[in-house]
Amino acid sequence: MPFLNHNLKNGLQIIGEASPSARSVALGFFVRTGSRDETGDVSGVTHFLEHMVFKGTPRRTALDVNRDFDRIGAHYNAFTSEENTVFYASILPEYIPQAVDILADILRPSLRVEDFEMEKNVIIEEIGMYEDQPMWSAYDHAKRTYFADHPLGNSILGTPESIRALTRDQMHAYFERRYVAPNITAVIAGNFDWERFVALVEERCGNWSSGFVGRQGVRETRGSRKFEVLTKSKVAQEHVFLLSPGPPVESPLRYAADTLALAIGDDSGSRLYWALVDPGFADSTDCSFHDYEGTGSFYTSFSCEPDRAQENLGIVHDVLHQVQKQGITEEELHQAKSKIGSRVVRASERPMGRMQAIGMAWTYLHQYRTVDDDLKAFDAVTLQTVRQVLDQYPLDQFTTLALGPLEKPALAGNNGKR
Amino acid sequence: MPFLNHNLKNGLQIIGEASPSARSVALGFFVRTGSRDETGDVSGVTHFLEHMVFKGTPRRTALDVNRDFDRIGAHYNAFTSEENTVFYASILPEYIPQAVDILADILRPSLRVEDFEMEKNVIIEEIGMYEDQPMWSAYDHAKRTYFADHPLGNSILGTPESIRALTRDQMHAYFERRYVAPNITAVIAGNFDWERFVALVEERCGNWSSGFVGRQGVRETRGSRKFEVLTKSKVAQEHVFLLSPGPPVESPLRYAADTLALAIGDDSGSRLYWALVDPGFADSTDCSFHDYEGTGSFYTSFSCEPDRAQENLGIVHDVLHQVQKQGITEEELHQAKSKIGSRVVRASERPMGRMQAIGMAWTYLHQYRTVDDDLKAFDAVTLQTVRQVLDQYPLDQFTTLALGPLEKPALAGNNGKR
Repeated sequence: MPFLNHNLKNGLQIIGEASPSARSVALGFFVRTGSRDETGDVSGVTHFLEHMVFKGTPRRTALDVNRDFDRIGAHYNAFTSEENTVFYASILPEYIPQAVDILADILRPSLRVEDFEMEKNVIIEEIGMYEDQPMWSAYDHAKRTYFADHPLGNSILGTPESIRALTRDQMHAYFERRYVAPNITAVIAGNFDWERFVALVEERCGNWSSGFVGRQGVRETRGSRKFEVLTKSKVAQEHVFLLSPGPPVESPLRYAADTLALAIGDDSGSRLYWALVDPGFADSTDCSFHDYEGTGSFYTSFSCEPDRAQENLGIVHDVLHQVQKQGITEEELHQAKSKIGSRVVRASERPMGRMQAIGMAWTYLHQYRTVDDDLKAFDAVTLQTVRQVLDQYPLDQFTTLALGPLEKPALAGNNGKR
Repeated sequence: MPFLNHNLKNGLQIIGEASPSARSVALGFFVRTGSRDETGDVSGVTHFLEHMVFKGTPRRTALDVNRDFDRIGAHYNAFTSEENTVFYASILPEYIPQAVDILADILRPSLRVEDFEMEKNVIIEEIGMYEDQPMWSAYDHAKRTYFADHPLGNSILGTPESIRALTRDQMHAYFERRYVAPNITAVIAGNFDWERFVALVEERCGNWSSGFVGRQGVRETRGSRKFEVLTKSKVAQEHVFLLSPGPPVESPLRYAADTLALAIGDDSGSRLYWALVDPGFADSTDCSFHDYEGTGSFYTSFSCEPDRAQENLGIVHDVLHQVQKQGITEEELHQAKSKIGSRVVRASERPMGRMQAIGMAWTYLHQYRTVDDDLKAFDAVTLQTVRQVLDQYPLDQFTTLALGPLEKPALAGNNGKR
């Protein structure tokens, strides 16, 4: 049994998956907090705080953090999503003590006012950088249009205005509330000694404060059903997103939903690929399934020359209506399952991949899932379970957002109301 | 002993590294041909041919190639460099027969005239796309400036003119000369049955024609020592490359050269990082060592606001002169070795990484090298071997190329002649 777990008295959870034949080890601290846990007056604080974690502690300057990670050859980073903030490092097993020492230290950051003010500029630049990427920008606006006043519609980065208005004390209060021990899981995968790892985490994190843990506003949504066009004359291509409802992360239907999305819109050999990209009507197309706590969504998208956008939108409507009515074929199901099996296996081949997989499964579901568990779950998907997904979460209940040079009258959609 | 090898009668080589605990398998066909093997009248033919390989055979249309790979969930692709063209796929072990069948089939492409003419547009678009990426464009021009009339200066993509002028018969003649069996190695790594794999390759490739194999123009070069400024008013930042000589792929000094480059210009915590990026003088900086057959080169680069370029160039000169004179420190050596160790291990964790590593080592050196061989070679690097690299390949013998809004009088370099 390669799975290991232990809770500290303050509520911090520690989990591990041992692969003694691995040559490296990956470790991460999963903080169960994201943009959906923000109130409107601190929009972007979660992501900004992720940056500040690297800016120093009572024991380390920002320079020391960088140097100390470099000294042990760590490959390290962090990310912030709607629901999680994750800090991680991949190292050779001999450096576990140093890596735990650094990660545990930086997770109690000083949040010095001068660093805080300096870092605001970095965040505002990052917001600008993302806004320059039309596909990403369209994705972000589509998410907000779909989720509307649901907390999942909150922006991860915030706006230049919300970041400028944020104070160090607001961030500190957010930190105190969300970075409590019971809201954090320390995760390790690869080649390690479990007893030593637990002892190290206990030594470094045992005094972290406890506190109330929870998430408000967990509820289902089926989207605003709006059709919006965001005109950006400087953007060359038209970028269009159609969002429709899907099962939440806790639903056993999520495997069928993933498979269905792949059959519809994988970047090669999918229904949308043959309808849009292969004939040269669009540069790219995609359909992905995103699952969150309490709700989920299918994101269908394409980008193309503006004068093709209206016609392509019609094609996407046709494809989605047809899948909704007739489902996918046995051959499409088989192909999607082959691709997923191959991807699940490839993602599992590194300690880094396993660390992320077991950390997420634990954070969301308090479950340990092996690679085989996931492979079996995908293997069990049938045309019937795909049908269940379609019946419970109709694909043709779109919320649509287009971003690009077009103006609203030039692009119109019946939004699936036939 | 996980290494396996076998030669077919026609000269095709087959090598493998077995990892029975792996869950996937990666296979590749390494064709020892690249842009350096092109004559001036067919500039870009190697890369164009790589595209044509996916356009069909007597048994498969381009559509079939795509569908057949998709059916087995393959993650597949190809790349062309100065010296190699590699086709590869990563799959679940059960699909090895199908993957060998597809890869072996497409490596004898039909090169149909209508596909050839259609694909020209794709290649010309790809050239335009790369030209829109100033860092890549600067790299390509810097390489040409450094290598001048040495075959390594040949462009991989060619130019729109050279691609338009190319005929299907020229490509066919190039194919017949370079894609002969003795110039190709079939490589497999991960979870597989060796006897069955060899039998499959023999069945599919045993009839491939043999022929003369060789590479002309393998010789050392130390660069043109030119200083060139390419003015592109539409580019916002100035992108500067300094190339200096380095050991060839067959030199045992290549491990010390890699380590030295990392200490000088890794993207975090290196000499140039602290001199340029940390204080905010440049957006990015890098130093990498590239080794080829017969010669090698260090590529040092940075990008910054145009009005900082001259001053930054002075800083880079100072850093390189100082390293040339005094070498690196014990601490820098230790840190660089930690990083490399960690990277070598991470890259080795997937069958895909091992397939590429053993394929390259075999293609260049006819050697099988384990991960431990590489780790030991890096571990053996000392300040003395770094000194040997510097003595034999002076870092301050620059060839310089700048690409960006600046014009020549606004940017001048002493090119290291102090």
